[in-house]
Amino acid sequence: METTLIKDLKAGTEIKIHGWVYEIRNLAKISFILLRDKTGIVQCVVSNPELNKKISDLTLESAVEISGEVKEAKVKAEFARSDVELDVTNIKVLSKAEKLPIHVNEKTTTTEFQNRLDYRFLDIRKPKIQAIFEIEATIMKAFREFMDNEGALEAVFPSIIGASSEGGTDLYRLKYFEDDAYLSQSCQLYKQMLACSLEKVYTLFTVWRAEKHNTPRHLNESRQMDYEQGFADEKDVMDVLGRCVQHIVRKVNEENKKELEILKVDLKIPKIKYLTFEETNELFKKEKIPTDEHDLTPEGERKLGELFPDTIVFVHDWPLSGKPFYIMPKKGKDGEEISAGFDAIYKGMEISSGGQRVHIPELLEERLKAKGLNPKDFKSYIDSFRYGAPPHAGWGMGLERLTMLILGIDNIREVVLFPRDRTRLTP
Amino acid sequence: METTLIKDLKAGTEIKIHGWVYEIRNLAKISFILLRDKTGIVQCVVSNPELNKKISDLTLESAVEISGEVKEAKVKAEFARSDVELDVTNIKVLSKAEKLPIHVNEKTTTTEFQNRLDYRFLDIRKPKIQAIFEIEATIMKAFREFMDNEGALEAVFPSIIGASSEGGTDLYRLKYFEDDAYLSQSCQLYKQMLACSLEKVYTLFTVWRAEKHNTPRHLNESRQMDYEQGFADEKDVMDVLGRCVQHIVRKVNEENKKELEILKVDLKIPKIKYLTFEETNELFKKEKIPTDEHDLTPEGERKLGELFPDTIVFVHDWPLSGKPFYIMPKKGKDGEEISAGFDAIYKGMEISSGGQRVHIPELLEERLKAKGLNPKDFKSYIDSFRYGAPPHAGWGMGLERLTMLILGIDNIREVVLFPRDRTRLTP
Repeated sequence: METTLIKDLKAGTEIKIHGWVYEIRNLAKISFILLRDKTGIVQCVVSNPELNKKISDLTLESAVEISGEVKEAKVKAEFARSDVELDVTNIKVLSKAEKLPIHVNEKTTTTEFQNRLDYRFLDIRKPKIQAIFEIEATIMKAFREFMDNEGALEAVFPSIIGASSEGGTDLYRLKYFEDDAYLSQSCQLYKQMLACSLEKVYTLFTVWRAEKHNTPRHLNESRQMDYEQGFADEKDVMDVLGRCVQHIVRKVNEENKKELEILKVDLKIPKIKYLTFEETNELFKKEKIPTDEHDLTPEGERKLGELFPDTIVFVHDWPLSGKPFYIMPKKGKDGEEISAGFDAIYKGMEISSGGQRVHIPELLEERLKAKGLNPKDFKSYIDSFRYGAPPHAGWGMGLERLTMLILGIDNIREVVLFPRDRTRLTP
Repeated sequence: METTLIKDLKAGTEIKIHGWVYEIRNLAKISFILLRDKTGIVQCVVSNPELNKKISDLTLESAVEISGEVKEAKVKAEFARSDVELDVTNIKVLSKAEKLPIHVNEKTTTTEFQNRLDYRFLDIRKPKIQAIFEIEATIMKAFREFMDNEGALEAVFPSIIGASSEGGTDLYRLKYFEDDAYLSQSCQLYKQMLACSLEKVYTLFTVWRAEKHNTPRHLNESRQMDYEQGFADEKDVMDVLGRCVQHIVRKVNEENKKELEILKVDLKIPKIKYLTFEETNELFKKEKIPTDEHDLTPEGERKLGELFPDTIVFVHDWPLSGKPFYIMPKKGKDGEEISAGFDAIYKGMEISSGGQRVHIPELLEERLKAKGLNPKDFKSYIDSFRYGAPPHAGWGMGLERLTMLILGIDNIREVVLFPRDRTRLTP
């Protein structure tokens, strides 16, 4: 007999299910087991005395196979199906669990966070934790689906690089046979090269930063959703980003109703708002928020989240000093040099930054010098634009950052299965 | 005026297109330009004398914007649209290409392979090269789509690990702050842990092997498609794998008609064939192919490809000696101990290996010892099966391996945008 998924149980049928024991109440004559599979939880009632005796030493989280008749539910249990329960005719223990090192059913006690991460493979059995990763999987899927519909090509980039991609520090170094090599902290150069040859490319890419920060917002290994478009400027790719995040949120709302309910998250399709950097600072002055002439402050980002709830705020026309060397300069309304870069703020935090890139070798050399960098160190990067590189633009958006904001989670480690941070290298 | 994609051009319309100059024939009074965008190539005819003069110094692969009227084609050019051509009214050079370091249009001369890889961002402008990566993107998409439909969760695993996952050698080592760490060569442990908690998981994961081999089939950085299923044995996951590859091939046939034509590949949905290891060796003896008592030989794999064309051949019931410690032992038909592992052979090569895993801690210790390994070195791996780990099984399949087999390509580097091998660390 094939097994049935808990979500598919229908009253009046005889079935077999498998899963893990989430809760047991073992009484003298009757036992109640909450059984969990990947699709839900159902209450199983054991009233046969012999069977009841047989399972008297059943432990929490053991893997079992249960046969029985599906009936209308008499009582309700948290997270469990409220419409049906199982009248058990047989139980087969497939793998008996030893005493658990963390609480999977957190009705009475919760487990300390680091301990939970040490036993992440058990932690993820909790419906609330599973819901986070179901939603993160939908975010990845929705990002790719959106990009495929835009006609962008999914590209795979190397993780081991021979030299620093942005001339940055904080790289993890490794020995690559005779050579020194590094783990990539950005696919900037690669995606630009491809957009200059194939027009539209995207990737979901792992990046590593050997930063010693140890805050709830830092990861040393994280995932980035990257997009780059040829024959385009920053306005084109802000439009793409806005529609992309809207598509992602719409998809999560459609596919993760159950998970959003478990996490008590009410998610609205974001609106889009465009502000120049100058307009943003004027707004902050009016609101008496500290401003910075080169960047948005964390208070400023939070304020934008307050003033424009459920909105992606694009702050564009940035000062040239506040953006990297590879962002295109352009003329502001008074003829001054500004930057064709932007930041996107959503729910009070930056979710993405991007802009039009410098595609002209001579200008790139000029911009590098202006930033105090040596064009010689960027020779292959500069040379890649010598063979018909069209104007192009793009952005990057952190997968974990977006997930935590969508779900209103404070610690970024909560949205990574096996996080890598300043002190954590296992499991 | 918005630009139109070359694939969407219709005779009788006035449009603007952008792209790269693939070919130029500049005559006294008339010029022919083959313009390429990401969707195709079209012939552009410049008969206006002034305009013809203006473009006399136009270089190959320059990025341009061309306006004109779409007309029915008079002549045909390779790779170009055969039904329409463009009567040019204006040309705007967006980025003039310097003298090319490699041939993009290979009509007369081809470029040496290493040189092509040095300039991969130009190499990929060739329709034949682009076709490979369009098809590889479809393979990734089809794999994920199939897995989503199976109800498997897409998981993201760490790339930096504190210790060797399979006790293997050939790991790239790096410094993780105060600790030594390694780049992952397999997600075996992680996917098993998740399958024991969430039932069905998959990932498309980068792996690194510091092997000094330098053959057309070796990469030091490659991508793997991994699947793992709880409450399952090797028969269950062989079935999943067979249907998965069939889905992938079907999808490539549907979505990449143009690319398959460019590459002259005729692709058939594979059939499925099951053979025991013993049956396979009997077959080889009959065919006078050298056999090995623990493994399939390369000659054997090739022979299976010959005997069963367009077929995925599952060789199962493997000798215990030929499979890793984590593959489940089982009884053969004469009561002897055999392995619940398998290899899948397609087009004469192994595309995947997998099997049922050992989920019982005591048996795992026994199997480790039998392989001459020390259970103490695998403590956390063994301990992860103490908390209700159900019987489970899975497999891994190389993305690049599958792509090269599907397309009949001999050198695996041809299917990686920026390959990393024994001697190559750039671009």
